[in-house]
Amino acid sequence: MTALSPLVGRLMQALRCLPGVGPRSAQRMAFHLLEKDRKGAQLLVDVLSEALEKVQRCTQCRTLSETPACPICSNSRRDRSLLCIVETPADIQAIEQTADYNGLYFVLMGRLSPLDGIGPREIGLDALTHRLRTESVREVILATNPTLEGEATAHYISELMHQAGIRVTRLAHGIPMGGELEFVDSSTLSHALNGRREM
Amino acid sequence: MTALSPLVGRLMQALRCLPGVGPRSAQRMAFHLLEKDRKGAQLLVDVLSEALEKVQRCTQCRTLSETPACPICSNSRRDRSLLCIVETPADIQAIEQTADYNGLYFVLMGRLSPLDGIGPREIGLDALTHRLRTESVREVILATNPTLEGEATAHYISELMHQAGIRVTRLAHGIPMGGELEFVDSSTLSHALNGRREM
Repeated sequence: MTALSPLVGRLMQALRCLPGVGPRSAQRMAFHLLEKDRKGAQLLVDVLSEALEKVQRCTQCRTLSETPACPICSNSRRDRSLLCIVETPADIQAIEQTADYNGLYFVLMGRLSPLDGIGPREIGLDALTHRLRTESVREVILATNPTLEGEATAHYISELMHQAGIRVTRLAHGIPMGGELEFVDSSTLSHALNGRREM
Repeated sequence: MTALSPLVGRLMQALRCLPGVGPRSAQRMAFHLLEKDRKGAQLLVDVLSEALEKVQRCTQCRTLSETPACPICSNSRRDRSLLCIVETPADIQAIEQTADYNGLYFVLMGRLSPLDGIGPREIGLDALTHRLRTESVREVILATNPTLEGEATAHYISELMHQAGIRVTRLAHGIPMGGELEFVDSSTLSHALNGRREM
């Protein structure tokens, strides 16, 4: 790679830490940042460095936050008797956008995956049980993803909740709104059948 | 967006300066950097900030370089009588990888695009003519992309070269090696026919 300025080569390498960025995108990004958008690049340096310094996990729900308690946990108008358990901060975003939920969250920051060494401790279940013991939560809503690992995680947590005598629910699975029946996969359809409701 | 730490939101916004990164990738990247790879993120901050400070254009060929003359221009073993004209630094990379070229380069950092206000000056053609007047270049190889604008740029430069009495060539266009005839588009095929050679 003598053709390239070594520093530009190092920049390409550094950009590969971004998810989904291979050698070619990294090259395109490096040239773009240095040639077309130095202002944007400088802003990225500044904001990323500030975020690395200030953003930690919320001490209550484990989402990413620059304050010890995140905006939702510190909002006194949220219903503290409802706790929704999600895998990532992005899931909080998605649920907040429905404007249908006014409780609190707990972020696993992952899912149970014993083969990768991710057990109950790694997804914060000790913090969760401690929290449930000290706070008066009426209902826990499991909103992990409907994947194999997400389902296993939901089952594991529901066992914990049953032991603690707390009501536990799971988001409904079924045909997505606007979806067409013929294009729905059979696993979703079978969930929709089994979960059918009186009308 | 009260759900999100404002700083995390600003980081997502800043990441959108990267080419091809929309709101969802930016979100995924921000969470990944802050949650999974802080070391990589810190390295990115350091290298990008160093690159912004040090990387400029090579004074001779206009590619990105942290030294006034890039590694190729300052390499005394390169053939100074050959000059290959490319659109971007990435094209230099591609040609260097063939190991078939030992001349110098000139990087347009774009292509003629009058509607976008990109004229001969913006792609450095005044620097190019100046360079050809002061150095003894025997042949100019046009390696702009075979797009409408790349072709127009090649034609424009070939006119300049003819006026200056310098030999000018264009990369051959035709069927890519390993390509199958039936899948080659007709414009490429017509180039391949017109450019056929005795064997």
